[in-house]
Amino acid sequence: MEDAGLRTWVDQIGNVHGRVEGINATAKALIIGSHLDTVIDAGMFDGSLGIVCAVSALKVLKINGKLENVTRPIEVIAFSDEEGVRFQTAFLGSAALAGTLPASALQISDKSDVTVQDALKENSFEGTEESFLQLKYDQRSVWGYIEVHIEQGPVLESLGFPLGVVKGIAGQTRLKVTLSGAQGHAGTVPMAMRKDPMTAAAELILLLESFCKHPENFIFYDGQCKGFSVESLSQSLVCTVGEIYSWPGASNVIPGQVTFTIDIRAMDDMAREAIIFELSKQMYQACDRRSVSCVIERKHNAEAVMCDDELSSQLKSASYSAMMRMTGEIPDEVPVLMSGAGHDAMAMSHISKVGMLFVRCRGGISHSPEEHVSDDDVWAAGLAILSFLETNL
Amino acid sequence: MEDAGLRTWVDQIGNVHGRVEGINATAKALIIGSHLDTVIDAGMFDGSLGIVCAVSALKVLKINGKLENVTRPIEVIAFSDEEGVRFQTAFLGSAALAGTLPASALQISDKSDVTVQDALKENSFEGTEESFLQLKYDQRSVWGYIEVHIEQGPVLESLGFPLGVVKGIAGQTRLKVTLSGAQGHAGTVPMAMRKDPMTAAAELILLLESFCKHPENFIFYDGQCKGFSVESLSQSLVCTVGEIYSWPGASNVIPGQVTFTIDIRAMDDMAREAIIFELSKQMYQACDRRSVSCVIERKHNAEAVMCDDELSSQLKSASYSAMMRMTGEIPDEVPVLMSGAGHDAMAMSHISKVGMLFVRCRGGISHSPEEHVSDDDVWAAGLAILSFLETNL
Repeated sequence: MEDAGLRTWVDQIGNVHGRVEGINATAKALIIGSHLDTVIDAGMFDGSLGIVCAVSALKVLKINGKLENVTRPIEVIAFSDEEGVRFQTAFLGSAALAGTLPASALQISDKSDVTVQDALKENSFEGTEESFLQLKYDQRSVWGYIEVHIEQGPVLESLGFPLGVVKGIAGQTRLKVTLSGAQGHAGTVPMAMRKDPMTAAAELILLLESFCKHPENFIFYDGQCKGFSVESLSQSLVCTVGEIYSWPGASNVIPGQVTFTIDIRAMDDMAREAIIFELSKQMYQACDRRSVSCVIERKHNAEAVMCDDELSSQLKSASYSAMMRMTGEIPDEVPVLMSGAGHDAMAMSHISKVGMLFVRCRGGISHSPEEHVSDDDVWAAGLAILSFLETNL
Repeated sequence: MEDAGLRTWVDQIGNVHGRVEGINATAKALIIGSHLDTVIDAGMFDGSLGIVCAVSALKVLKINGKLENVTRPIEVIAFSDEEGVRFQTAFLGSAALAGTLPASALQISDKSDVTVQDALKENSFEGTEESFLQLKYDQRSVWGYIEVHIEQGPVLESLGFPLGVVKGIAGQTRLKVTLSGAQGHAGTVPMAMRKDPMTAAAELILLLESFCKHPENFIFYDGQCKGFSVESLSQSLVCTVGEIYSWPGASNVIPGQVTFTIDIRAMDDMAREAIIFELSKQMYQACDRRSVSCVIERKHNAEAVMCDDELSSQLKSASYSAMMRMTGEIPDEVPVLMSGAGHDAMAMSHISKVGMLFVRCRGGISHSPEEHVSDDDVWAAGLAILSFLETNL
């Protein structure tokens, strides 16, 4: 950051800042951010690529003598603890800065009972409630927030594009489904007399898949919301069963209970709620037909965040320019994607308009040593940020 | 046993024997058996009811002065270790007696690395290969084997009968199915691009259920085998998925791998093989459609055992008499059931014709403290054995 001509500091939650004031130090600032932390056994692009692109673009401006002439302050923030690996709470750094994290977060502890406060103090931060509350940025000081991040999915690769503009970050609901039936001996209960939560779970998992592949067959969602129709919903909607357990879990015992998780994400919050309502109704009905009891608990809920139209349009033009600079050819229109994963932009949306750029990653792989972004695509992402800054500041 | 006038001994694998020679000590013997061991947290009827019924019936014969006049030897055997809890090998006692267990079984060890041999020696048995091999009964010395056991299923209760005759013990195959797909982020992989082993598993589990509820829709099994047609198969066929695991098993991760078990039992071995063949074919096809790889392993196989027609007919008449003695009314025809669970009769079938009587248990529950047989039904079972002995010996 210093090499790129930025004034730097580390704030009281461990976020690393680099800032240039430009010709109008009192103007609202553009913040370019992403995170520095990773998950265990991760690759090197998730998070840090966004920071490297921002710092590199600013360094080019410096070399070209344009850095001191930007029309508003530009601040790069390398957020701490986006992944939530240690304290099981994602976006610690950006949420503290956006003021959405209460000071009680200082008391959250890791598996060894070390609190956030302890960890901060051990690393020479103040770790007080006062220092924590002072982290919050005044939204009147922020003009906009942009973030570059690897896609973590296979869409750009399948479309053959290095870059894509993010239209928004999906809302998410996590459900826990508990099915209880009649436990029994695998050999002695005739098929017709069973109340088997395992076959019920199988039916519900396939029902969920049908819902999410073809929501138009299941919900009659009248009208539009934030520009999303049922048709567009079917492109953004994703549903996953990641965990399943049977009890008592023996090959020769019809289970007494089966539990599984459902993760549902969609760009349109109302449509997500409509899906959950209709899905739950049909799940209860399916269980009734099987004389299996069904309990559906909502364990987590997060609303969707829409990216700003103007920022997105500017990022789209910048990506277009970058691709033209890279290849010398006129590219096709830059794709617009939704983000199914959460990002620091979610937290920052509470104090600023936000825009995001996705970078193609091989096989859609992230959170793995196999994570990879080609050198050309890294270049394209950096050039896109440079074009954005050159055109808009 | 001694109280019932029997000569008693414990053999070298822990089976407890009680025998009366009757008027012809060189004639082939009737053996009446069941097991004394239980599972952890079990009820008191599974196994021991069969021994108590046999001993009680013989005691009545003794009191009535008929015991010494029986036309052939009668031997009650309380088998050791039918459940296989400690050494994970069922039918230790009866299989040793039937000669189907090799002497190498002495080296099987429990979770604390104590072998069968160690356990026998600690309890003052010889535990040598020689003593083990001498356990085997000569099949020329055995006329027949009968066994009373709780049903462990809900059929007799649903029919409103205390007793039922077992036509045979189902054959069993245990499969392990491993599905491998493409692990991914729950938010970033569109539904259409997924290779999800969890939804594939759900489809296979429902396919299995359809097969077992309506095998006539799936297999075209030409002709008859041991008197079983496809129609009768659909009454005896049971399929169970008792265990399922997803990997890595996180709510926000599309699993990379899902494994589950399949337990298939049927009276007709050829039909069971035909089902497994056709089921496996359709399972592979379903996985191909989903681009998920599928490996099906056969972990266990046991052929069906048919009960002897004459013994079954005699047990049916005896049950009829017992029910008439109990109620003073003429009962409906005694039901004929298949046994989906394994019993000592399976091992004994290698050296003798076998017959079995099932006793109604509340809710079909076994292997649980909730296991229960009413006093009346205990009486009915004992009376049935008494009637069998009075009529046939």
